[in-house]
Amino acid sequence: MSVRILFIGDIVGSPGRTAISRELHRLVDRHAIDLIIANGENAAGGFGITPDTAAELYRHGVHLLTSGNHIWDKKDNSGFLDREERIIRPLNYPPGTPGRGSTVVETPAGIKVGVLNLEGRVYMKNLDCPFRCADAELEQLRKKTSIILLDFHAETTSEKASLGWYLDGRVSAVVGTHTHVQTADERILPGGTAYITDVGMTGSFDSVIGVDKGQAIQRFLTQQSVKFDIPKKDLRINAVVIGVDTKTGKAVSIERINAAC
Amino acid sequence: MSVRILFIGDIVGSPGRTAISRELHRLVDRHAIDLIIANGENAAGGFGITPDTAAELYRHGVHLLTSGNHIWDKKDNSGFLDREERIIRPLNYPPGTPGRGSTVVETPAGIKVGVLNLEGRVYMKNLDCPFRCADAELEQLRKKTSIILLDFHAETTSEKASLGWYLDGRVSAVVGTHTHVQTADERILPGGTAYITDVGMTGSFDSVIGVDKGQAIQRFLTQQSVKFDIPKKDLRINAVVIGVDTKTGKAVSIERINAAC
Amino acid sequence: MSVRILFIGDIVGSPGRTAISRELHRLVDRHAIDLIIANGENAAGGFGITPDTAAELYRHGVHLLTSGNHIWDKKDNSGFLDREERIIRPLNYPPGTPGRGSTVVETPAGIKVGVLNLEGRVYMKNLDCPFRCADAELEQLRKKTSIILLDFHAETTSEKASLGWYLDGRVSAVVGTHTHVQTADERILPGGTAYITDVGMTGSFDSVIGVDKGQAIQRFLTQQSVKFDIPKKDLRINAVVIGVDTKTGKAVSIERINAAC
Amino acid sequence: MSVRILFIGDIVGSPGRTAISRELHRLVDRHAIDLIIANGENAAGGFGITPDTAAELYRHGVHLLTSGNHIWDKKDNSGFLDREERIIRPLNYPPGTPGRGSTVVETPAGIKVGVLNLEGRVYMKNLDCPFRCADAELEQLRKKTSIILLDFHAETTSEKASLGWYLDGRVSAVVGTHTHVQTADERILPGGTAYITDVGMTGSFDSVIGVDKGQAIQRFLTQQSVKFDIPKKDLRINAVVIGVDTKTGKAVSIERINAAC
Ligand SMILES: [Fe+2]
Ligand SMILES: [Fe+2]
Ligand SMILES: [Fe+2]
Ligand SMILES: [Fe+2]
Ligand SMILES: [Fe+2]
Ligand SMILES: [Fe+2]
Ligand SMILES: [Fe+2]
Ligand SMILES: [Fe+2]
Repeated sequence: MSVRILFIGDIVGSPGRTAISRELHRLVDRHAIDLIIANGENAAGGFGITPDTAAELYRHGVHLLTSGNHIWDKKDNSGFLDREERIIRPLNYPPGTPGRGSTVVETPAGIKVGVLNLEGRVYMKNLDCPFRCADAELEQLRKKTSIILLDFHAETTSEKASLGWYLDGRVSAVVGTHTHVQTADERILPGGTAYITDVGMTGSFDSVIGVDKGQAIQRFLTQQSVKFDIPKKDLRINAVVIGVDTKTGKAVSIERINAAC
Repeated sequence: MSVRILFIGDIVGSPGRTAISRELHRLVDRHAIDLIIANGENAAGGFGITPDTAAELYRHGVHLLTSGNHIWDKKDNSGFLDREERIIRPLNYPPGTPGRGSTVVETPAGIKVGVLNLEGRVYMKNLDCPFRCADAELEQLRKKTSIILLDFHAETTSEKASLGWYLDGRVSAVVGTHTHVQTADERILPGGTAYITDVGMTGSFDSVIGVDKGQAIQRFLTQQSVKFDIPKKDLRINAVVIGVDTKTGKAVSIERINAAC
Repeated sequence: MSVRILFIGDIVGSPGRTAISRELHRLVDRHAIDLIIANGENAAGGFGITPDTAAELYRHGVHLLTSGNHIWDKKDNSGFLDREERIIRPLNYPPGTPGRGSTVVETPAGIKVGVLNLEGRVYMKNLDCPFRCADAELEQLRKKTSIILLDFHAETTSEKASLGWYLDGRVSAVVGTHTHVQTADERILPGGTAYITDVGMTGSFDSVIGVDKGQAIQRFLTQQSVKFDIPKKDLRINAVVIGVDTKTGKAVSIERINAAC
Repeated sequence: MSVRILFIGDIVGSPGRTAISRELHRLVDRHAIDLIIANGENAAGGFGITPDTAAELYRHGVHLLTSGNHIWDKKDNSGFLDREERIIRPLNYPPGTPGRGSTVVETPAGIKVGVLNLEGRVYMKNLDCPFRCADAELEQLRKKTSIILLDFHAETTSEKASLGWYLDGRVSAVVGTHTHVQTADERILPGGTAYITDVGMTGSFDSVIGVDKGQAIQRFLTQQSVKFDIPKKDLRINAVVIGVDTKTGKAVSIERINAAC
């Protein structure tokens, strides 16, 4: 028996939520999905998440939200993150950080899936070692379930691939997020871990990684900060479908999704 | 009439050259290739290029080599780069840098193709502005041919996508290199420019972006420099085939290649 | 005959302006100052400058303001920078950047002093090469005067010292800014250029480089952005007094100032 | 009663060791020094340290060596660091790193002094949090002595000043190293901790932070790695003398030294 998990790449702003509202149910049917996880760090206007935007995503069927560096963009949501069990943030933030870094969710059929979120350090923040944090947290999670998915939110391909190989055989899947561009390197590593460097992005593709392309270009040309608007055309969902053997926790399949909405 | 260009992602070490020797001719036949360009910055032992490794790649059929930050890893090859017309390096290095940043090559059928190489600045070196360097160089190149391909060797998805949109309609193709992981976002932009964020890598895929995976993991765990060996198993060629209308210089097709060797 | 220039390190917020209002006239008298230049990038609330804060500094006697990366923190002041001849910004920003990167001011006695502003690139923005920009601009400035001061706004000691040595004998002084901590390495290089790695800061020293020390610590502990308040105690002016021979443009003296206010 | 500690800034290559051999005894006499600590990360040829260069420094009177990022430049010295009790390396490297991050030394008169070494993270490596590592280690060290000195090897002034204030009242001194330029901000913080952002460098000052100035300039002009030679002229010792009350562990004085040799 296998459980089929849909993991959706960073949902960017209202166009990202619109894409979800239009196409998610079709993806769920077509791919016989049991559990829907999405990275929501950009769900609210491209920067962070709010109770309302999260609620909208739950209504559309998302079971759990992971996140990353942008989860902190909305100020004063630390109470929200502490309360809200359906959002996790990277585990390797310092002690005292609001929210939680892993959780166990149940599919409607009652299968337990552990979900872990980590953030890379190369060209990002000064966080705790994601490799060692994974070691410690997996020891706990594996007591509860052998089906475990990790969202590794990181910039460089080397840090992502290294953690994928490091955890091969110890988790069901390592899926990368953060670059907003889907990579074509999905595979099942020899130990049974499904891996992809980046799942990509959900929102407007008439854009530079989800934001207005003229403004993105301006930032490079002027070397000054530019306020980014979120364009609304050419909506797509980037995701992966991962099949996991429920007995062994090994991945049996990983398939990329790039769905126009 | 169209010209069909095969652009091959960073060739890493002798396993990368072996992959080329085994499979290139088959790719050329299957895809009716007119011109073969490859990024050779890692061709010699993973770091830089030498006259011998370049000659080996020419023998296998490569017409032109582009490069990037690693082209300088072999010391004392500035004379080589100055002499050798079949290798280009990123144009936006400082005045006085050995070698050249663009060239015009001819296909066997006599069609002229301009090739430009630029390097990104985000999380890389302090080079000249790639956007403005492109503007200036294209003015010259377009006098010679309207078929122009740019290898943009850069780290972040935002810098690559921004330059792609910036040049849309002015070049036939913008292909990204440097991350060694192929992205799944190939498309033809509205103005007629074929675009992909990263073409990927040619060499051993039993690796972290071409180098020994245990050593790559060690570097992250210890935060110390580690000497990288180049593994030899699971050889693949990552590339794109780009079709360009010879009259207009507009791209008519872009197809990803991920060929086991 | 010599001209005596007082160069004041980054003025931070209203405490910095208060320090100037209290002590500047005494420094001018004691050190027989002919010309007063100050880095004003943090003059308004710690971030950027406004017409009002600039006017306040002119009233206290400042003749010219230099700046750096924070000059852009106040939005919509590009018109102000274009108009206002008494503020310069780093010259090596991209073409099209508002404002100017150098100027020639006259002391009350009619001696012309060229002032140039550059920004470093290491761990900062992707700007044009400060070494080459200096070469080009000095060629112009030297036609107008041989007394030239450069404010090099940069992070690392190696980039600052390198530019100092590079320009030794071609400018009267290279004074560093940006780190907000005064260095003790002032000297006159063999070619006659006065040099100091960093002039330091003007404002509250009951702080971490001018901002609330508890908030600064919080940012490191939490790895999250923290809004910074500007404390008001323990006011000091950090500056240097540079004496320049008006015939040769060579520096004859450089003296550090660290004045409690 | 007070103990007087001489802390010497990064000793660079054989010119740095020569400076020590010539002047250290005079400094010790003039300042009535009880304990001599030096940062030795650049003692051997500018990069790392060897058993021989360390032995030479002990012979000249140095009691203990601290270090920083360059301590790892000499390969295969992990056994040396494990064995050698008179060298410490930054404590906040990952578990399993050779060597130790703190120690307790005794002055000839039998006074115990705890010495701790930490490395910054901003623009440096992905290490453990220096603030929290300090908390944990001080709890242990304070059981052995109340006289404690920290060498914080870091790049930015904000990270250094923040840790200084964070530890004010809990250690006798926080001295910064790594930038190789002495700062003029030495003071005793209100809680009794002596503080300086950077002690500076010991070696040739006819240089860019200890290395050949022409080569340093070349690196900026060419954006390529340049092999650095260590110049030999204009030798200086940069250091601080810190007086600590042996009863309370509070600092009673801090004085900068910039001695020509
Ligand atoms: Fe994102
Ligand atoms: Fe992100
Ligand atoms: Fe490469
Ligand atoms: Fe590269
Ligand atoms: Fe500043
Ligand atoms: Fe600044
Ligand atoms: Fe050093
Ligand atoms: Fe260092």
